[in-house]
Amino acid sequence: MAESLTTRLRIRPRQRVKLARHDPDFTGAFQGKAEVKSATKKNVERLFDLQYKMYAENKHSLLVVLQAMDTAGKDGLIRHVMTGMNPQGCRVVPFKKPSEKEFDHEYLWRIHQAVPPKGEVGIFNRSHYEDVLVVRVHDLVPKSVWSKRFEQINRFEHYLAENGVTIVKFFLHISKDEQKKRLEARLKDPLKRWKFSVGDLAERKHWNEYMLAYEEVLSKCSTPWAPWYVIPANAKWFRNYAVSQILVETLNRLRMSWPKVTFDPKKIKVV
Amino acid sequence: MAESLTTRLRIRPRQRVKLARHDPDFTGAFQGKAEVKSATKKNVERLFDLQYKMYAENKHSLLVVLQAMDTAGKDGLIRHVMTGMNPQGCRVVPFKKPSEKEFDHEYLWRIHQAVPPKGEVGIFNRSHYEDVLVVRVHDLVPKSVWSKRFEQINRFEHYLAENGVTIVKFFLHISKDEQKKRLEARLKDPLKRWKFSVGDLAERKHWNEYMLAYEEVLSKCSTPWAPWYVIPANAKWFRNYAVSQILVETLNRLRMSWPKVTFDPKKIKVV
Repeated sequence: MAESLTTRLRIRPRQRVKLARHDPDFTGAFQGKAEVKSATKKNVERLFDLQYKMYAENKHSLLVVLQAMDTAGKDGLIRHVMTGMNPQGCRVVPFKKPSEKEFDHEYLWRIHQAVPPKGEVGIFNRSHYEDVLVVRVHDLVPKSVWSKRFEQINRFEHYLAENGVTIVKFFLHISKDEQKKRLEARLKDPLKRWKFSVGDLAERKHWNEYMLAYEEVLSKCSTPWAPWYVIPANAKWFRNYAVSQILVETLNRLRMSWPKVTFDPKKIKVV
Repeated sequence: MAESLTTRLRIRPRQRVKLARHDPDFTGAFQGKAEVKSATKKNVERLFDLQYKMYAENKHSLLVVLQAMDTAGKDGLIRHVMTGMNPQGCRVVPFKKPSEKEFDHEYLWRIHQAVPPKGEVGIFNRSHYEDVLVVRVHDLVPKSVWSKRFEQINRFEHYLAENGVTIVKFFLHISKDEQKKRLEARLKDPLKRWKFSVGDLAERKHWNEYMLAYEEVLSKCSTPWAPWYVIPANAKWFRNYAVSQILVETLNRLRMSWPKVTFDPKKIKVV
């Protein structure tokens, strides 16, 4: 069951993605939170073990790319699924508006610096994909520039994958109605209000343009070496389960092993 | 009880520390693991909440310095206590032998770059204190150089503390016998063997010199703005409990509050 769920959420290379055909309310065979709670918990524990083995083996690294519209749950996913990871060997890198210094470089410069080293997990909260999303929607560079980036990104990710970086990319997919509910909830709850930004409302007006931009990303940049997954994210519990399941399967496929030692332990005496 | 335990483990400014007078087997009022298990778990949960508030408030940062002899449990502490933290806003920075580039700078250069920004937690796995520890024991720079560093470090930390960085420093204190047991256990267990390094045995020969070097660090660099704590660490469960308790108390003292918003939520309509 689990394997087919993962396959179902994965975008095949060159698949033409229409987000309207991906139901953000989809929850697979599950009816509610209670049913997946223990499965998610078990996955989080397995992630902790797999991460430790990756750290010990010091051969692979894992790069997780998170993209989504505001309120879709990038932060919540990190808080609920990635908190089970050992922070030693796991780094979350948020990509905001580039600094002046970053602007002086081409767009992949700051991204490359944040790629996780061997044995470690890197989580990109937003990423180089903003350079074909926000940049496109707000016309920050001409089309002649951003339209070349899909292929540039594919080649960049290919290079990383050939050099030990396992890449997995998640688009957390919510509906426009669900975003409305969540923005209203933030305004209502005094403990959540600080998360509300008036800028989110301005971005919301560009919803349809963003959907088109995401569709092009998903259609052009899901590759055998760096697949995109569209995660139905209206139900937070399903979003967390699905991502945890895909991460576990991805790390399992690496067939990692504990490092062998070069000394004979029997010949060593601790005095 | 808890408050007095914390006070007991804290080194007072200008206190002359003799490590022989600090029992690494000390476990306070607790007899065994079972007794503190729930208290540690509760602390880890409170740390998660406090970290979230710190992240939201975006005013303070927390810098945790970990120093210890090999096998004393820096990694284990991070794995068991810090894994409860959200990796978004918590970064572990291991300081190893400086790179060539780092060597081209003075010793605090690489340290300063790793200081956590506002709202975040930084955990130093080893630190600038190695520049008065390993550097001293192995004569890597002359005494005339390293002996000036205690005061330099105090001033550096003072500056950080005056600028919003809360600093707390832990020396995980084990006995030489306990280290022997742990090294032997690593050799014996195929799943732990990879952690064994023949270099650890060479360092072990310098045990007494390290203890003297630590005593000078603890005597000279425990300040009101950046206290050292000597954590009895022969019992791993007590080590984890004590550190989690001190971290919770440290963050509680910051009296953080949820950020106020500058807009009137009633006047905002999400369309």
